[in-house]
Amino acid sequence: MANFYINPNNVVNELPKNDQPKFFMFGVPSYTNLGDQAISLAERKYIEAEFPEYQYIEIVEEDDDAAIPIVKQCITRQDIVAFTGGGNMGNLYLNHERARRKVFSTFTNNLTISFPQSIHFEDNEAGIYEQKLSQAAYQKNQNLVLVARDAQSYHRMQTTFNNKVIFTPDMVLYMQPMNEKKLTRQGSLFVLRRDSEKVVKDTVIQNIKALLSTHQPIEFTDTVLDTVKTITPNTREELFKKELSLFSGQEIVITDRWHAMVFSVLTGTPCLLMGNSYGKGKHAYFDWLEHINWISYTDEEDTARIKQEIKVVMEASTHAYDLRPDFKQLHDLISLGVDR
Amino acid sequence: MANFYINPNNVVNELPKNDQPKFFMFGVPSYTNLGDQAISLAERKYIEAEFPEYQYIEIVEEDDDAAIPIVKQCITRQDIVAFTGGGNMGNLYLNHERARRKVFSTFTNNLTISFPQSIHFEDNEAGIYEQKLSQAAYQKNQNLVLVARDAQSYHRMQTTFNNKVIFTPDMVLYMQPMNEKKLTRQGSLFVLRRDSEKVVKDTVIQNIKALLSTHQPIEFTDTVLDTVKTITPNTREELFKKELSLFSGQEIVITDRWHAMVFSVLTGTPCLLMGNSYGKGKHAYFDWLEHINWISYTDEEDTARIKQEIKVVMEASTHAYDLRPDFKQLHDLISLGVDR
Repeated sequence: MANFYINPNNVVNELPKNDQPKFFMFGVPSYTNLGDQAISLAERKYIEAEFPEYQYIEIVEEDDDAAIPIVKQCITRQDIVAFTGGGNMGNLYLNHERARRKVFSTFTNNLTISFPQSIHFEDNEAGIYEQKLSQAAYQKNQNLVLVARDAQSYHRMQTTFNNKVIFTPDMVLYMQPMNEKKLTRQGSLFVLRRDSEKVVKDTVIQNIKALLSTHQPIEFTDTVLDTVKTITPNTREELFKKELSLFSGQEIVITDRWHAMVFSVLTGTPCLLMGNSYGKGKHAYFDWLEHINWISYTDEEDTARIKQEIKVVMEASTHAYDLRPDFKQLHDLISLGVDR
Repeated sequence: MANFYINPNNVVNELPKNDQPKFFMFGVPSYTNLGDQAISLAERKYIEAEFPEYQYIEIVEEDDDAAIPIVKQCITRQDIVAFTGGGNMGNLYLNHERARRKVFSTFTNNLTISFPQSIHFEDNEAGIYEQKLSQAAYQKNQNLVLVARDAQSYHRMQTTFNNKVIFTPDMVLYMQPMNEKKLTRQGSLFVLRRDSEKVVKDTVIQNIKALLSTHQPIEFTDTVLDTVKTITPNTREELFKKELSLFSGQEIVITDRWHAMVFSVLTGTPCLLMGNSYGKGKHAYFDWLEHINWISYTDEEDTARIKQEIKVVMEASTHAYDLRPDFKQLHDLISLGVDR
């Protein structure tokens, strides 16, 4: 049975019967990656703030299959279909890609939006095979618009698909900076991947750890939680706030997770981001965040140079910034709706 | 008296009287920067290839003032007004910025397109003053669309102006790669700025020169010619081809000029690009060209590391690439015309 999250505390099995236009967000994560959870939270906040005329309905990923026929039966021309953003378009996370194909190729008469994503199909037999399946599915929908969250992905989407492509930051950058009272910051937080995208060498991490040994305590974590089994639209905001609060207390964050950089931006926490297997964090950093002084990106492995880079971000003052104007292409798209 | 270049060999003082929709391109360079000349050539080739229904009319920059009232008298709703692209939006090249303001604030009833640009207003009194003047001028035109040629400029334009902003590569990247017979390449070409955007240290250049002393001859040049006084739409294509031919003969190009990298892309010439004062080449490289193997960008000053980077691009094989799909937002804009 499909669950529809009408708002975080209202989960129903039937779609509401009213004349209000609906905004259906498919693929909402229930897994414990706080980056992806923050995206789905930001997506809801964005639509509720900027397009309050829509009733926002979330479908978590494991309910996608059950929900599709129900939505198909009730959907009207004024409704919008969307699939959640993230860094999983391509052949590395096939469960997500398959769900995307199904949603895109089903609701072909409605404005369909693939929320801000990075894309990576591997340049091997499996990657090319999966890319063809996605091309076939996406091109069935003439009303599908893809949103790229970095320029590399914008180029890749435009050369891979025939669909319209627009360009905005990751949705979490729509969130406003935290204006907490000045906290006492203490210690270093290492936020590190344990998945197939990991490329940072353990020796580099060990060297940075030795560098930062004067900044006690040193804590290791990941933005993928193992303290809970599942996260829902009901529970994500509290966990997100808790994570931001953790970041707010650090003198420095060392990470290879793009969203750990984003959380550092939101909390004014000095942060050094390192690479993943296909450059999604690096590109998003250069595209949107290079002007933010307390964060930086590096591919460096030389300890003396890393030390200097850490010094620069730790000595930087925070300042105002605003990425909201960068969502204008998305705003224009939704404003025009099916009449675009 | 204003000159209108109907096509490169047909210069007239009166606008043609016919029913064909017109595409007016203002600000066309007559100065001897081959990068900007290549842009204006690519702009004509783009419109003539993709929108042959338009009569393409160029106005070189020194004729802008005289041409504005003439165009104003003849223009009809179906016509499009454009201002040439480049890397000069901002307060560093005020003659261009002033001409842009005048054109944008005059033709407010026509689709007006600022072709792909980088933008840089300095963060000082002069920069802020000029930025306000530009904001006032641009916002008079609700039909003005700005095109950013890198993500940093896309962000800056969206946070500076209220106008719609779209995202495409530099127009020269619309040009097709040269398919000349395999040339014998010999020697190194240093293509270096002598202007206010220069930041690369002379010692770094001297060290690279020493590195490449085995690749004789070593030649120094700039993409700004001093062998001619002026370039017009009549003469630019021949000079552009001559420049590409010069690049085609090199084993390696070392440069801080973005268009020297672009010419290296077009000719399959190994190239290492270094920075300018505000990162326009760096950002455009990461946004559009990182997947092209025979070119690279560096901020490095360490000779051993630069040596390694040069080795990588010199050993890379050329491969097919296609940036034409990346102009889709511009294509859609012009296709819709005033009915967008």
